[in-house]
Amino acid sequence: MASPLILINFKSYREGAGNNAGQIGTAAELVMQESGVTIGVAPQFTELHPFCKHYEIPVYAQHIDPVEGAFTGRVPAFTVRAAGCVGSLINHSERRLTIADIEATVAAAKFHHLESVVCTNNAAVSAAAALFAPTYVAIEPPELIGSGISVATANPEIIQSSVEGVHRVNPEVKVLCGAGIQSGECVKKALELGADGVLLASSVVKAKDPEAVLRDLISKI
Amino acid sequence: MASPLILINFKSYREGAGNNAGQIGTAAELVMQESGVTIGVAPQFTELHPFCKHYEIPVYAQHIDPVEGAFTGRVPAFTVRAAGCVGSLINHSERRLTIADIEATVAAAKFHHLESVVCTNNAAVSAAAALFAPTYVAIEPPELIGSGISVATANPEIIQSSVEGVHRVNPEVKVLCGAGIQSGECVKKALELGADGVLLASSVVKAKDPEAVLRDLISKI
Amino acid sequence: MASPLILINFKSYREGAGNNAGQIGTAAELVMQESGVTIGVAPQFTELHPFCKHYEIPVYAQHIDPVEGAFTGRVPAFTVRAAGCVGSLINHSERRLTIADIEATVAAAKFHHLESVVCTNNAAVSAAAALFAPTYVAIEPPELIGSGISVATANPEIIQSSVEGVHRVNPEVKVLCGAGIQSGECVKKALELGADGVLLASSVVKAKDPEAVLRDLISKI
Amino acid sequence: MASPLILINFKSYREGAGNNAGQIGTAAELVMQESGVTIGVAPQFTELHPFCKHYEIPVYAQHIDPVEGAFTGRVPAFTVRAAGCVGSLINHSERRLTIADIEATVAAAKFHHLESVVCTNNAAVSAAAALFAPTYVAIEPPELIGSGISVATANPEIIQSSVEGVHRVNPEVKVLCGAGIQSGECVKKALELGADGVLLASSVVKAKDPEAVLRDLISKI
Repeated sequence: MASPLILINFKSYREGAGNNAGQIGTAAELVMQESGVTIGVAPQFTELHPFCKHYEIPVYAQHIDPVEGAFTGRVPAFTVRAAGCVGSLINHSERRLTIADIEATVAAAKFHHLESVVCTNNAAVSAAAALFAPTYVAIEPPELIGSGISVATANPEIIQSSVEGVHRVNPEVKVLCGAGIQSGECVKKALELGADGVLLASSVVKAKDPEAVLRDLISKI
Repeated sequence: MASPLILINFKSYREGAGNNAGQIGTAAELVMQESGVTIGVAPQFTELHPFCKHYEIPVYAQHIDPVEGAFTGRVPAFTVRAAGCVGSLINHSERRLTIADIEATVAAAKFHHLESVVCTNNAAVSAAAALFAPTYVAIEPPELIGSGISVATANPEIIQSSVEGVHRVNPEVKVLCGAGIQSGECVKKALELGADGVLLASSVVKAKDPEAVLRDLISKI
Repeated sequence: MASPLILINFKSYREGAGNNAGQIGTAAELVMQESGVTIGVAPQFTELHPFCKHYEIPVYAQHIDPVEGAFTGRVPAFTVRAAGCVGSLINHSERRLTIADIEATVAAAKFHHLESVVCTNNAAVSAAAALFAPTYVAIEPPELIGSGISVATANPEIIQSSVEGVHRVNPEVKVLCGAGIQSGECVKKALELGADGVLLASSVVKAKDPEAVLRDLISKI
Repeated sequence: MASPLILINFKSYREGAGNNAGQIGTAAELVMQESGVTIGVAPQFTELHPFCKHYEIPVYAQHIDPVEGAFTGRVPAFTVRAAGCVGSLINHSERRLTIADIEATVAAAKFHHLESVVCTNNAAVSAAAALFAPTYVAIEPPELIGSGISVATANPEIIQSSVEGVHRVNPEVKVLCGAGIQSGECVKKALELGADGVLLASSVVKAKDPEAVLRDLISKI
């Protein structure tokens, strides 16, 4: 069986930039090599290029646009691929897209050989997103984002119903579980509920010791 | 008197990425060194970091967001500064912002010691933008963008009235002239009409010989 | 079998307001009574109330928002219901929504006993929209909108694949066919391809004689 | 001297619809007739038409769009005018617009003989908005909206600096003061600080006795 994915979103956090970002990258690489668990990172756009050059962990963009040509200030999928990324978040709750754009962006990701991680807010939207056949659907109940309350504990049914709904539509689409993931216990629970990994942010990015948090996260897999 | 600014927007053009982007960077650096005319570039986000490392020309972002923290898929001003940029386009016609966000973004640019180039569509909006005291207002009549018709020829009054309106509000704010700029003749006309430089895209980025186009652009200054 | 639905979107056309709107309403009522074919109208927001009072045809809003409370300048579903409407367009190509908002808006429509007509741009998005179990999915290929070229003639496969995709997801969801519908021949073709009706705008709203156009539209059903 | 304007925004409040809306309308009409103070209302779109027919108070839209033609789900200025409104809010904090759209919307309002009330968030944006010569600029510091804390008490400088900034740009533009207005004392303070009226919402719309609140609001003018 393939390894689960632990995906760290750096958002626009100060702690997700500069030296601190480097520390997280180093820690992720180390823990991934030691444990064999895949640890991906989604740094800020300007750091995608140096991250892909310096680290051997999979690097994701936080957003891509399905465009090329006369579009200023966008993030064309092809530039993210050229920087060396393996994939991208799409439709994060802090960067919502129209349904037409989600479909076009998943298609653009495929065209450029990028994994697509479509973020969703409930089971119905997760199933709808699965119809576009992305690599992952990442379910994050909005009321739990940044709450410090793990979705796996607070709302296990939403994960189960999302996993079921996604697989009913397309059994090849993998499911990530987001919102409130903080510990190895949360990760274990998420995997037991049928998720193929987790998407998390502040609990790693704002940690005093990211390496310790990463070791804890993978400890019960 | 300070040099005028020739600012090249790479947009999401394929020709503004990879090797071709490098060729434009090299040509811009060469022509700037020889002529003393400031030539700035606005590459794609993922290429800001390598551009700032490899070239001695001023590098601008195509867009910045006045945020830090839990914002996914945004372009925080501080990351653009950390990459080595000197400034950013703001409110390009292909990436319009609310008036509240323009004000906040110009302020964020100042805070991070970045030049701000606020794009506008007519004389009234140019004057309003000048009230936020950005470094530049770049006037681009929407009907001329990508038209191949130079604003300096087709609509000289809009440049004059924009320059006057901007300077009435704040004489320190400089004015760039955009839309349809293609030749040294256009640049000359724009400067005669009171502009402090030009903003252009496809005529350099899609040129077979960008160096020749750049030489022509600065030839009548 | 239930009657097909001929749904007329008045958009922001001048011809869809005032006396002209009244003429279309009168013609629709007459043709509906004579033929038994359901003819719905989607007037402008300020005219929903008088239309529902004066005509016995089903009236739809052009857009609703799934909100109530401190939201200024929105169109809460409950206000549209209170005005007497039977349903609303959702996610029209000229008013695109995020996937989360489409799901929430279809749910709000149900809660307020309103029919939901979710507009889509291709077969994949149609199937995804069907997962939210709206009353109708209205497929309108963007390249044909306002083209004068009937989707039923130009691109019959997109209707067929949308009907199939929608029914595979949920056989209760009905399909409207939009873009380029102009004549009874187009309507007949659309119904043969499996659609339950058509969504159209300018060919009725801008017609010199809307009654004649409506009679033609229903002539081959 | 002209009367100050007390403008009541019904937002998407349930209490701003149906019978309750009627009660507010009746109370506003009564208090306006008795006191001579202008009391305007901004009901929900579907109720603009009946409000204009039933009441002799000035009615405003909560938002207008500077469009006509193939735009679905928008609120064309001409439809608001045809319904009998005297003006519209523009760029409310819950419905922010691009700077280009604000300029175009103020122009559309003028063209259709509608008053324009441009909402702003601070003194700099207020001055910029004044450059478009709207009828009113309504300053609402975002941190005070819905706070129950009156801007006139909490942050009198922002009103003064907005009034000064607006009048420096264009002395004909009037200023409304929003956010946290609840009592005659607040209104008095706002007028003393140079405002020409107030913009408020929940303290009237959600009041048990709107007539009593309206009488209090105008009691110290």
